[in-house]
Amino acid sequence: MANRETRAVKVGGVIIGGGFPVSVQTMWKEPLAAGEAARAAALRRIGSLKELGCDILRFAVPDLASAEALGELARESPMPLVADIHFDWRIALRCLDYPLAKIRLNPGNIGARYKVEEVVAKARGKGVPIRIGVNGGSLPEDLRGRPDRAAAIVEAAEREIAIFDELGFGDVIVSMKSSDAAETLAINRAFASRHGIALHLGVTEAGPLVQGVARNAAALVPLLSEGIGETIRVSLSDSMENEVLAGREILSCAGLGRGGVKLISCPRCGRASFDTHAFTARWANRLYALGADATIAVMGCVVNGPGEGRHADLGITGAGDKVVIFRKGEIARTIRPEEADTVFEEELNKL
Amino acid sequence: MANRETRAVKVGGVIIGGGFPVSVQTMWKEPLAAGEAARAAALRRIGSLKELGCDILRFAVPDLASAEALGELARESPMPLVADIHFDWRIALRCLDYPLAKIRLNPGNIGARYKVEEVVAKARGKGVPIRIGVNGGSLPEDLRGRPDRAAAIVEAAEREIAIFDELGFGDVIVSMKSSDAAETLAINRAFASRHGIALHLGVTEAGPLVQGVARNAAALVPLLSEGIGETIRVSLSDSMENEVLAGREILSCAGLGRGGVKLISCPRCGRASFDTHAFTARWANRLYALGADATIAVMGCVVNGPGEGRHADLGITGAGDKVVIFRKGEIARTIRPEEADTVFEEELNKL
Repeated sequence: MANRETRAVKVGGVIIGGGFPVSVQTMWKEPLAAGEAARAAALRRIGSLKELGCDILRFAVPDLASAEALGELARESPMPLVADIHFDWRIALRCLDYPLAKIRLNPGNIGARYKVEEVVAKARGKGVPIRIGVNGGSLPEDLRGRPDRAAAIVEAAEREIAIFDELGFGDVIVSMKSSDAAETLAINRAFASRHGIALHLGVTEAGPLVQGVARNAAALVPLLSEGIGETIRVSLSDSMENEVLAGREILSCAGLGRGGVKLISCPRCGRASFDTHAFTARWANRLYALGADATIAVMGCVVNGPGEGRHADLGITGAGDKVVIFRKGEIARTIRPEEADTVFEEELNKL
Repeated sequence: MANRETRAVKVGGVIIGGGFPVSVQTMWKEPLAAGEAARAAALRRIGSLKELGCDILRFAVPDLASAEALGELARESPMPLVADIHFDWRIALRCLDYPLAKIRLNPGNIGARYKVEEVVAKARGKGVPIRIGVNGGSLPEDLRGRPDRAAAIVEAAEREIAIFDELGFGDVIVSMKSSDAAETLAINRAFASRHGIALHLGVTEAGPLVQGVARNAAALVPLLSEGIGETIRVSLSDSMENEVLAGREILSCAGLGRGGVKLISCPRCGRASFDTHAFTARWANRLYALGADATIAVMGCVVNGPGEGRHADLGITGAGDKVVIFRKGEIARTIRPEEADTVFEEELNKL
């Protein structure tokens, strides 16, 4: 897998493209309230997203008040924040008064040329890059209904790029999203073969958690494995935390994992004497937020337990009416089920 | 995509291989209780799994009492049931007294040759196929630690197949599971290039819901797209229903979808005036259980709403303090948010 060469774009402290590691993004899902209490709560949530592996966080900015609330938040945020703007160039201009790390807007939906020029001039002056985000569902009138939809989506992106090119503004990232996995593959392969612009990958309107994760993995893992895609956002009708965890797992499946905990856990069956679902649910996010590089196995029974978890640094499995803690396939402790959380935590701390 | 040729294997009313549609399986996650009340409850659950798209259901059978409870259930089940047996050949023999549709066992873990011969003779007599299920985590001693793990896993399966070959029993399906997506790809590609035996695909111990769905999609979508894999089971530390929905979505991503509802739903953002997460959570499984071929869009706001849901047969989106129901991009009704469920149901019934 040879990474194609892309122009590096600086998004706050994160670099997208230029051979830098693929970054993981998510998007804030609530209106952003103004005021210090709301900001403090948002900062706590941002901190926990960062622990889970989020690199960049985007916010919809539907009005000037939101621009100001977001701008204030950006001054204190421990990760780069991005403003997503539609229609109104004055919102983009206001955002650029604050230390936002990137703007997402499509020149084609901003309107008159002088408005685009004002935004570009100010972004250039501040060193802020812009993402062009084309969605398959909102193509220009004349590109709709073309038989080759993937080509139409690429052409829509190229029209937006051309506007920035005319203005000599090259600090751009492009995304071209579809709600279909195979179309997402076709679009991004076609674009990558023609441009050295960094790509933001994702499947849009991907659906609820299960379907959305499947559709994103089906599209993104092959692209990333081919070296296409410099930043990703898994969009789900679900929490930001799950978007980030899905993003991490997708990177890992593409051979671009960054370390951290790898959790293997069995699906549970009629043999299981230990409730792996409940244990995994209680522990998963805490384990994923650990800095440690470790494989943790949560298994239900002796058939799949210490054997299949042989390579795990730490494992827990049911064994009749007992629970067994094992390390690298060797039984370390045999305990009662009600001690599982306490003893697992002790053993985890020893790692 | 040319489907490779595989020998067809009859699993009750479902045919695996031979060019028949790829089937979706899941596995029962609780001990199976005996008695009529437990059986009636199990049959209701099996009925709802069938509505969601499950074709074949497997049960762990750790002892003779479970074999009998499962056997009784199989007499009344609306879908083929499979018995998963380890170590004790007498359990397999007992299962074969009932109308079970398939047995999963590995001759290598049954022990003495005469035991394997007894099971094979009885399965042959009853026309019941056997799945050989090799797991990367429980390889024979001499194959562990080989540098090419994928090749070692294929070799473990070939040893099991050889035992059946010697007995002239060809009614087999093979699975070779790993907890790693890339390894799953390598194993199944290697096997498919050498054998015409139907493959049961899955990633084992794939982890919690998000990670498990991502890992399974990353492995299974490319294989299925290449025509490799005749039946699938997405194993998750989560519900059977989610395993089935993930399986359906994976088939759909591989271009093997069977129709039914396609749900597109937006991730929600600060622009959203309509809570797509809650609405989607309330409606998803009901929509997926519908027989209808339809695209349903659940969108948060006017930016991505009727436009991006233009191709949807039915859609719902927020619009300021109202909710809009649309069909094929045309607004059909504008309602109050609290009417959303009732009106959506009315419109759904008109489809």
